[in-house]
Amino acid sequence: MLITFEGIDGAGKSTQVSRLQEHLQNQGRVVLTLREPGGTPEAERIRELLLESRHDFTPVGELLLFAASRAELLRKVILPALENGTDVILDRFFDSTTAYQGYGRGLDLDMLTEVNRIATGGLCPDVTFYLDLSPEEALLRKFSEKSLSLDFDAENLDRMESSGLDFYRRVRDGYHALVAASRKRIVQIDARLSPSVIHQIIISCLDSIDPVTGYRP
Amino acid sequence: MLITFEGIDGAGKSTQVSRLQEHLQNQGRVVLTLREPGGTPEAERIRELLLESRHDFTPVGELLLFAASRAELLRKVILPALENGTDVILDRFFDSTTAYQGYGRGLDLDMLTEVNRIATGGLCPDVTFYLDLSPEEALLRKFSEKSLSLDFDAENLDRMESSGLDFYRRVRDGYHALVAASRKRIVQIDARLSPSVIHQIIISCLDSIDPVTGYRP
Repeated sequence: MLITFEGIDGAGKSTQVSRLQEHLQNQGRVVLTLREPGGTPEAERIRELLLESRHDFTPVGELLLFAASRAELLRKVILPALENGTDVILDRFFDSTTAYQGYGRGLDLDMLTEVNRIATGGLCPDVTFYLDLSPEEALLRKFSEKSLSLDFDAENLDRMESSGLDFYRRVRDGYHALVAASRKRIVQIDARLSPSVIHQIIISCLDSIDPVTGYRP
Repeated sequence: MLITFEGIDGAGKSTQVSRLQEHLQNQGRVVLTLREPGGTPEAERIRELLLESRHDFTPVGELLLFAASRAELLRKVILPALENGTDVILDRFFDSTTAYQGYGRGLDLDMLTEVNRIATGGLCPDVTFYLDLSPEEALLRKFSEKSLSLDFDAENLDRMESSGLDFYRRVRDGYHALVAASRKRIVQIDARLSPSVIHQIIISCLDSIDPVTGYRP
């Protein structure tokens, strides 16, 4: 199975990715957890480029670099793993491109869909867990000692503050639009629930999927 | 005007680019000559990546990297120059992608067209000079003391030999298909003519273009 996690920074994706990985491994399954961009030597080089001078790239240039990194990871790691029967968990996949570059930055959605299709060769996750959180709540979490999220660090805060709350509101709207358009694939979960409850929801959902047909009640 | 040169390695593009640049400058025009990939700090970083480990990338990853580099060069250098009234001469542009990646390597032509369109935002050269040469002739040139081409170096030969003549035959077929489909834009010139004659053909062609309407008789 290919399982992806989506949501704005601070929603708790990393925590849930780790918990799910552990859960599946305890069931005796082989699990590969990956993060984009990166994951192959070539994709890591692209990642470096994006991290070092991301803001110097034009939006379309950045989009195509992300796509190049995704194309590498997909063809060299994800597809071979899936063919071997390995479960693959991705912390962000093409829905992030649509939400961030499309809804957040205003790039043409048809163009994004086309670039996503080219990068992935049409591969779609079996299930996507979208952890829904308001940007305000994400910011509050940062200042809370009792932060529920492990993946929310200073870098995320910098990025969030510099992009502004409006940007993240548009990203969230984008995720909501994606959920509405892909109810069969994307499961929206309230990220304000406790990590344990979220984990249980995820497990229940996965248990309910027919392993052969992919049917979900 | 945006003028591009196309053809397989060894066809004499660099020679003609230099001569045309000099000719236009002698007319008092401001001319910018560029080579892909590269041309901005970001695009040069992508160029390095492609040169260092090009053969480690998947075909689609490589395609998207070229496209990212093109998107950068176009939006940061080419478009601003054209808007300033500068003439821009490109040694290769998107036709190379179609000929090499599409016809040469067999990537899906519709996908290539879409990626080209995204990278260029739809910008098309005013005129493209395609220097037509057989791969056999290109190889012979390499071994000839009287090589007519300045852009044919050992690196080009290595690349040509390692890819094989069949590859370059397919690339040439691709160029012929492009010429057939874009007779209004692409001017095919026999690269076996002397550099001076080729230069005169190019000048005559450019002189015959109506500077306002772009009409060519």
